[in-house]
Amino acid sequence: MTQPPLDYQSAGVDYHRIDQLKIRAQQAARGTARHLGAHAATEIGASRGESAYVVDVGGVLVASIVECLGTKALVADAMRPISGRTHYDTIAQDTIAMAVNDLVTVGAAPVSVHAYWAAGSSDWFNDVARMEDLVRGWKAACDVCEVSWGGGETPALAGVVQPGSIDLACASVGIINPRERLTLGHNLAAGDAIVLLAASGIHANGVSLGRKLAERLPEGYATRMGDGRAFGEALLDPTVLYPPVLKALWAAGVIPHYTVNVTGHGWRKLMRHPGDFTYRMQTLPPVPAVLAFMQGEARLDAREAYGSLNMGAGFAMFLPQNQAAAAIAAARSAGVHAWNAGVVEAGPRQVVIEPLDLVFTADELQLRA
Amino acid sequence: MTQPPLDYQSAGVDYHRIDQLKIRAQQAARGTARHLGAHAATEIGASRGESAYVVDVGGVLVASIVECLGTKALVADAMRPISGRTHYDTIAQDTIAMAVNDLVTVGAAPVSVHAYWAAGSSDWFNDVARMEDLVRGWKAACDVCEVSWGGGETPALAGVVQPGSIDLACASVGIINPRERLTLGHNLAAGDAIVLLAASGIHANGVSLGRKLAERLPEGYATRMGDGRAFGEALLDPTVLYPPVLKALWAAGVIPHYTVNVTGHGWRKLMRHPGDFTYRMQTLPPVPAVLAFMQGEARLDAREAYGSLNMGAGFAMFLPQNQAAAAIAAARSAGVHAWNAGVVEAGPRQVVIEPLDLVFTADELQLRA
Repeated sequence: MTQPPLDYQSAGVDYHRIDQLKIRAQQAARGTARHLGAHAATEIGASRGESAYVVDVGGVLVASIVECLGTKALVADAMRPISGRTHYDTIAQDTIAMAVNDLVTVGAAPVSVHAYWAAGSSDWFNDVARMEDLVRGWKAACDVCEVSWGGGETPALAGVVQPGSIDLACASVGIINPRERLTLGHNLAAGDAIVLLAASGIHANGVSLGRKLAERLPEGYATRMGDGRAFGEALLDPTVLYPPVLKALWAAGVIPHYTVNVTGHGWRKLMRHPGDFTYRMQTLPPVPAVLAFMQGEARLDAREAYGSLNMGAGFAMFLPQNQAAAAIAAARSAGVHAWNAGVVEAGPRQVVIEPLDLVFTADELQLRA
Repeated sequence: MTQPPLDYQSAGVDYHRIDQLKIRAQQAARGTARHLGAHAATEIGASRGESAYVVDVGGVLVASIVECLGTKALVADAMRPISGRTHYDTIAQDTIAMAVNDLVTVGAAPVSVHAYWAAGSSDWFNDVARMEDLVRGWKAACDVCEVSWGGGETPALAGVVQPGSIDLACASVGIINPRERLTLGHNLAAGDAIVLLAASGIHANGVSLGRKLAERLPEGYATRMGDGRAFGEALLDPTVLYPPVLKALWAAGVIPHYTVNVTGHGWRKLMRHPGDFTYRMQTLPPVPAVLAFMQGEARLDAREAYGSLNMGAGFAMFLPQNQAAAAIAAARSAGVHAWNAGVVEAGPRQVVIEPLDLVFTADELQLRA
């Protein structure tokens, strides 16, 4: 094997550049909060920079968000001739997951979603099988998350979106009720347990790397992994919908101190909270076969793998030690494996992954202005 | 001149096909409304199929939406070498207008927006001048509409979005307060006046046709129109932000019976309401120079022009005759020209444009399942 290892940046995603824009936009955005007074509304200021934005309107805490699928639909398109299925039912689930899994981090139950399906041309919508799968999968994910599908936008954007492709995103509105569920990290404390929720596979972050890898493999997406499944098929395992886990948690009377949806920055996201805390991880969840395959075939070291992929941990909840068992049981009741995998400590902001002898320092995750 | 006339479908936008998908999705979406009960929320059912979705959460009426800019950014990209400006400040205004102008139709004051900026690659975000214009224009439009910019999503989507391009959209949340402002057309009645609000130009609908036309013109976007302005420059005049008009209207104690944002279907949109009404238009607002130029150069007949472009009417308000003068004054106080331009009559669902001897019948606008 003569090819160099793949890294995430060579796969076309440069998070540093994107983060610069995010920070610039966040600064301008902050200056608009004063307008809420005109609507007898107030901002929950601490939600700025968090995964969803929260406003108090007439005593009701409303959270909102828009999130993008990313490039996972390209894998579905490539797999269709191989598998004979469109895969857009699970692609729909992925798209909704991107939004609702972020929305629940602030303690909001998602109430409604809007679909954003921007195709490269009107022709996209004439493929009946694909279209029916997309609609069916979208509705099924709404049913799992108990959200109302309120509408959407289905433009044809020749010249903006690639011919034959579709840009999929989801906007969602949620409510935090009762207000005590508002989860913005104020209560995060040294000693808190870190409970990780199982991922089903790559979810929808790291897909560019997966696509790059497929180009290298002699049989591409059809390459069989150790477990006999095609690589492309495994890449398409849909993202876990975490709202039912949070619902079960809340029903059990547990309100986490903080939660994190593990997405584009892998385990670096565990230090999403701005405070001075060290996140000491002592247990690694099982690595989904597709991620282990990617790590091996792309020759990622542990730093690259855990710094950009979820590696089996799709969501993290930070809560008092004496609530960890209840949280794990609640997750299990919602069909999701969970582990008490680490502990929050006072100290420099960093993620320490003890079993891998790996440290991510604060400068490796810059999300805020 | 040997080339055939341009029509909207030859410009790559086939609304009939898109509408089929919309209808299919609307049917599935309707089946998810029952989930609201789990959140102690209820749906304002009549908002389904309207321009924004309304839910009652704890006594607060929350409206939400996601809307796309379309392809207007491609005009900005093409004009930049000609004008020496990025134009992304006004492109930002257009994108926000697409969302908030729809949101106000249901009687909601927009409260927050989320930015959706999906680029073809991370390189897009390295163009500092363009990026600063986009951020500045976005903030300025938020200031005009008195909305808080809550956050956003800035993915790089190589393989989905064209290299060098960006897919711009806006998600917005609004509140209807007091509840009596809820505007879903229940009160629309024969005899109501139809007040049209001035458009600034093409807004962001019909842009594909404009781009197609530019390809035909010997000097493309640099072609001078009768008023001396470059065609591309005029195409980029930003969409009017209508929320300040509605704010002035509400402050004057006027609540329209129904309102319509005139977008992708031109004046056919005037029969957006599902009821059996004839919309008899007696007055034509002045046609913005850029639209007159397009009509002439693309040799559109009146049916094609008024059936796909706003032709000077960017927004329509249906209200009692005795409130028309107050509505027009309110619009003027917000800096927008308005005309009492027609009347609602009992009769078959159609738009009659008397000065043009033109009729659009109900089968020419199918938005609902």
